[in-house]
Amino acid sequence: MIFETTEFKERVKRVQKSMEEKGIEVLLVSDPSNIYYMSGYDAWSFYVPQGLVVTLTDEMPVFIGRHMDAFAGVVKTTWLDEQHVRWYADTTIHSTTSHPMQRFAEVLGEFSHAGTVIGLEMDSNWFTATCYEHLKTGLPDVKFIDASTLVNWVRVIKSENEIALQRVAGKIAELGILAARDTLRPGVRECDVAAAIYSAQLRGTDEFGGDYASIVPMLPSGEKAGAPHLTWTDRRYPENICLYIELAGSYYKYHSPLARTFSIGKPNKDVDYVSKSLVEGLNSALDTVKPGVTAEEVELAFKNTMKKCGLEKNSRIGYSVGIGFPPDWGERTISLRPGDKTVLQPNMTLHCVPGMYYDNFGVSISEAFRVTETGIETFANLPRDLIVID
Amino acid sequence: MIFETTEFKERVKRVQKSMEEKGIEVLLVSDPSNIYYMSGYDAWSFYVPQGLVVTLTDEMPVFIGRHMDAFAGVVKTTWLDEQHVRWYADTTIHSTTSHPMQRFAEVLGEFSHAGTVIGLEMDSNWFTATCYEHLKTGLPDVKFIDASTLVNWVRVIKSENEIALQRVAGKIAELGILAARDTLRPGVRECDVAAAIYSAQLRGTDEFGGDYASIVPMLPSGEKAGAPHLTWTDRRYPENICLYIELAGSYYKYHSPLARTFSIGKPNKDVDYVSKSLVEGLNSALDTVKPGVTAEEVELAFKNTMKKCGLEKNSRIGYSVGIGFPPDWGERTISLRPGDKTVLQPNMTLHCVPGMYYDNFGVSISEAFRVTETGIETFANLPRDLIVID
Repeated sequence: MIFETTEFKERVKRVQKSMEEKGIEVLLVSDPSNIYYMSGYDAWSFYVPQGLVVTLTDEMPVFIGRHMDAFAGVVKTTWLDEQHVRWYADTTIHSTTSHPMQRFAEVLGEFSHAGTVIGLEMDSNWFTATCYEHLKTGLPDVKFIDASTLVNWVRVIKSENEIALQRVAGKIAELGILAARDTLRPGVRECDVAAAIYSAQLRGTDEFGGDYASIVPMLPSGEKAGAPHLTWTDRRYPENICLYIELAGSYYKYHSPLARTFSIGKPNKDVDYVSKSLVEGLNSALDTVKPGVTAEEVELAFKNTMKKCGLEKNSRIGYSVGIGFPPDWGERTISLRPGDKTVLQPNMTLHCVPGMYYDNFGVSISEAFRVTETGIETFANLPRDLIVID
Repeated sequence: MIFETTEFKERVKRVQKSMEEKGIEVLLVSDPSNIYYMSGYDAWSFYVPQGLVVTLTDEMPVFIGRHMDAFAGVVKTTWLDEQHVRWYADTTIHSTTSHPMQRFAEVLGEFSHAGTVIGLEMDSNWFTATCYEHLKTGLPDVKFIDASTLVNWVRVIKSENEIALQRVAGKIAELGILAARDTLRPGVRECDVAAAIYSAQLRGTDEFGGDYASIVPMLPSGEKAGAPHLTWTDRRYPENICLYIELAGSYYKYHSPLARTFSIGKPNKDVDYVSKSLVEGLNSALDTVKPGVTAEEVELAFKNTMKKCGLEKNSRIGYSVGIGFPPDWGERTISLRPGDKTVLQPNMTLHCVPGMYYDNFGVSISEAFRVTETGIETFANLPRDLIVID
């Protein structure tokens, strides 16, 4: 295990405290990041229903999953013992006559009675509309309430151990960007750049091997850079094009994302001007960060600098990061955008990733960092510049 | 676009036919594989709500998504035109005061009235419990029914164009397994083997570059092989261990999975016996496949052979494959297991992946194939043997 049992116990305690504040007696956790946070369970088994049941009295949560995952996976690789594992039959998977969540209702029944308030991660991708329907049918007398980001909010301030993993992830992110820089040339296929990035991400360093990131590298180029979520193809790069790459280093599921913009050939005036302005804006945002400042004030600093440069940007420029499982490495809590009044505190960790997207090019340059007592510590250390490949 | 517009139109027609049979007037598609099937839209944007609305009368579905994805992504890269795109504001993402699905309710309202029967993919990971609650609030007078695998079932018989992509994917899957074979040695870290596999998967061949597979390679070894969904760490392989690797080649999102078992050092008697028996069982299953045979008959052939070998296996041994997006490359339709009476037909494509998992080792050897007029065509061509690394 990458964390001591005591750290898991403290995490569960903080979740229980938040449950109490919200009047939740039993919590069903479905998000694999939240399951990992409290149990240490790390496997690609979330494509079938699984969950962690947290009560107010037991320091150890109960895992529910498929038999092959529950025993050989959870009991062998986490701090949970056999008494805290429940399983459902394999025949219920992708079946038209039964569903794994019927078993979840039974297990939740062990810990509840008429009127019990049960919190659910209603907006988690791993808790579908069908899942909810089965719980309502199986437990008609309890009260369900939405607890979608309860555990996510407990995760926002990191321990020293977590920060240490994110520092490794930051180093791995650097290696990903450098691998792209060393591969990107006219005539090279997009997929070959993706291969070089993946290879660097997974090899990591001699001391620390890399984990998979919860999102694939995104590397939209030229006209397609206006659509930041397109992935790669097997087309070849032309003599002259602007592109940006957003990726993350990942180490034991802790993420440090990083974006840089590249120009193959001499950048045109627009690309040059927008990327220089964006770096100025990013620097203003990062200079603003310290304990006591709000999330929206960071965004405002960016926006004001961009305005001075004659540029406008109107979507969020960053978010909280930490543990990540597909489909996302964002924590779904703090957003650097107008209206987010979260007060920044030491050891919150964020990814500030402003992007400027136009019809024929896009620019994005980012930093992942932790809030320190006085400012920030970035996890990666690469120049904040447009990278020109001649 | 990798397919002609005519092929997309035929696909939509088949979906409309199935809707009519089920009494569905409007269908909201949330699964990215189903969205891709009808539109060709391929991006890692499914971590926020997106959907395709299919009516009975319009040959072109309507996409709903985030502004940056809808226009720069969908309109520029698919056959859908601007009139068939709707978007929601970025401020609704991970917001506590508004939700993208409120906009979905408005858009569905354009195509419905009191009493309209709307089909939803209720058990898709991309349609959460919260999504459903917002639709019920926004459209109190329509009738929602579950259409979770409607499009999935339309996808089970592939066109010649789709088969061609799966053949490329099969070739790429071979390259992944061969890269593992060439890297796996005592003292090598698990992450370095994962890096070699990814590199081979994404480089693909000179002619066809690889896409990301919808599941990361799984390579559990030794005692952990009983938990088939564990991924890699940065630990080093010992002198003597048995492991299996399950991965997929992917080409324009069409998948061909492949599993092989490896022994570093001389295999012990158990590993040797179980893997030989498993290959016999797999061969019996594959020999049984032809049009007219049912899915459960294929599993029975496997089970009978295993029984002759004195071995027992009680979970499903395969499933339908094709397009894949995270978290799954299975189509969630046909399962090779008792009770599945689906009659096999030409150009259904399946992955037969029996695995035998014990306390201290696991063995899995598989083939992905299409059903031909008389039997099968496998997509990869590697010997069906335990691979021993001396």
